[in-house]
Amino acid sequence: MKKPQLVWDIKPVSYILGKDAVSLSVKRLKEFGKRFVLVDENTFEHCLPVFKNLIGDIEIDGIIKISANSNNKNIEETIVVWDKLSEFGADRDSLLINLGGGVVTDLGGFAAATFKRGISFINYPTSLLGMVDAAIGGKTGLDFSGIKNQVGLFTNPIKVVIDPIFLKTLDQNQLLSGYAEMLKCGLIMDRDLWGSLTTLNYQQVNDWDSLIVQSARNKVDIVRHDTHEKGIRKILNFGHTIGHAIESHFLNKGQPITHGEAVAAGMICETYISSKIYEFECTQFNEIIKVIDMNFKRQELKNEDIDYLIDLMKQDKKIKEGKHNFSLLRKLGKAVHDIEVDDNTIRESIIFYIEGKNCTD
Amino acid sequence: MKKPQLVWDIKPVSYILGKDAVSLSVKRLKEFGKRFVLVDENTFEHCLPVFKNLIGDIEIDGIIKISANSNNKNIEETIVVWDKLSEFGADRDSLLINLGGGVVTDLGGFAAATFKRGISFINYPTSLLGMVDAAIGGKTGLDFSGIKNQVGLFTNPIKVVIDPIFLKTLDQNQLLSGYAEMLKCGLIMDRDLWGSLTTLNYQQVNDWDSLIVQSARNKVDIVRHDTHEKGIRKILNFGHTIGHAIESHFLNKGQPITHGEAVAAGMICETYISSKIYEFECTQFNEIIKVIDMNFKRQELKNEDIDYLIDLMKQDKKIKEGKHNFSLLRKLGKAVHDIEVDDNTIRESIIFYIEGKNCTD
Repeated sequence: MKKPQLVWDIKPVSYILGKDAVSLSVKRLKEFGKRFVLVDENTFEHCLPVFKNLIGDIEIDGIIKISANSNNKNIEETIVVWDKLSEFGADRDSLLINLGGGVVTDLGGFAAATFKRGISFINYPTSLLGMVDAAIGGKTGLDFSGIKNQVGLFTNPIKVVIDPIFLKTLDQNQLLSGYAEMLKCGLIMDRDLWGSLTTLNYQQVNDWDSLIVQSARNKVDIVRHDTHEKGIRKILNFGHTIGHAIESHFLNKGQPITHGEAVAAGMICETYISSKIYEFECTQFNEIIKVIDMNFKRQELKNEDIDYLIDLMKQDKKIKEGKHNFSLLRKLGKAVHDIEVDDNTIRESIIFYIEGKNCTD
Repeated sequence: MKKPQLVWDIKPVSYILGKDAVSLSVKRLKEFGKRFVLVDENTFEHCLPVFKNLIGDIEIDGIIKISANSNNKNIEETIVVWDKLSEFGADRDSLLINLGGGVVTDLGGFAAATFKRGISFINYPTSLLGMVDAAIGGKTGLDFSGIKNQVGLFTNPIKVVIDPIFLKTLDQNQLLSGYAEMLKCGLIMDRDLWGSLTTLNYQQVNDWDSLIVQSARNKVDIVRHDTHEKGIRKILNFGHTIGHAIESHFLNKGQPITHGEAVAAGMICETYISSKIYEFECTQFNEIIKVIDMNFKRQELKNEDIDYLIDLMKQDKKIKEGKHNFSLLRKLGKAVHDIEVDDNTIRESIIFYIEGKNCTD
């Protein structure tokens, strides 16, 4: 038998970031036999007309619409997408255009990558969260059995097109949700970005374009080096271990909160844990908590929820042999990964969050 | 922004073929935190005891059983597997052991590759079809919306362990189903193998072990060179373009036939097409048809089914811009791919099949 041949398997992704990105992507759209657009009810109404206008005479061969509900990132909606692709006669020469926020790009990417063993897709994120985080990096996923992203794949779109034009379609709440990931990006790897974000709260930002490009570039740099999250990419999970548990908790209670709100809560807890392990200066610690609190109200958690939250964390994909490995802040602008944290410290951090304290309390 | 880094993405697959293969795989099984076995009702009863006996004191942390029905390679059964993996607390350090025929390895591979964005799996094919074909090459798939493998992925197990010990658990019908792929393997690339297979019908074979290893090695060689079916791998589709349509036709009628029966029918039609395009000698043509007919009875198709069959072919994943691209025989032992065939010739070939003719008729 011949020796195995090593071959490139990841399709190269290219990125277009900033003003006029959609127009610059038109040439690539022409190369496919058929083009289908996946939208949710909101992006169907607010983004699809903008998109169609920008792509000019490029023909769209079918529109697939899912409901606009953060609970719908599930296998049932994926089946709807597979059904529509079958009905439209999509083949390996077809393209799926994911026009929407994180639900559309996560679910659309999964559906495309698994239809006929994979058709091409392009992400056009329309939410702030999508632009700076969800649409970049090849993680697709569905919520399953009460667990966030329990089912999914690492699979890359052929292109990610980040055009701030869609920001105009967002309300304040949606802006806020993406803002948490931008704050995170500053905290873990870009003190300059953090500096630009912390002098004002999100409602006072004027120059979104450059902040979005700066945040998105940071993420692109990280995921290019570590697509499969074996090392450095894990720092992006700062705020997410406890954040995901809090998000699942409220989802399971039937009172979903936004991903941004959950991550903001997670970042407070995990900054607390970081400060315990790395002995932050009190001023730096307070600054971080203050900026998060300035933008996000604390969620209503009770002491008796803590055990359940810790249980939920044990479902985390990052868990290995039952140990909680956190990504933490070494200092402002520098994160480390794979730090083991015991249940007691996690418990303390959630109590700190619930009690609304800061370092000097 | 830094230049993209190219990284290896396919996990290397290793193969253990032949007598004692299961015992030789034990060391690798030990390396995982938890091990789960996926079986169907038949392999639960007939193969799991054999398997457990061979792996000695290795602990199994959970058994997942799906029904033994070729109709069950679907998303509903996949959901059962995801549910069980969640319930058992499977994590990225867990292994899924697929112990079964093509349904178990196709569905189990898909379920593992999409659970928590991918856990490791090993294929232990127990059917002849699995050993020489389905378990090798990284194609996973589910039937969806009446189309075979409409949903799926290219994703590799870490290991494929082909141990002929499980042959003893098979009835004649199951042997026959795998036999079609062995005949195909001979026809497209291995005249020696063809020679060994054609002097007797499948019930007269004594030395299965060496024939299985020879067939499996041929497939391994092909898929190592072309995992994603961009070129040479397509020759494995000989008999499958029309064969899949016939299989879907009977499935949709509620009278499923085996994959082997469908491929045998497809090979007769596609040998006819090959002979039209490449002007086979009549003796060679008759030999091929004779050997297939010696093992497989012709399926009951009617002239009025042909349009529907051609429609089904248009759903084939290999279709590009509506054109039927076939893999055909240039001569006995040598196949070519990407040959365009018009609807009339396809129609003729099915009529030839229905009328039970051969070259001299």
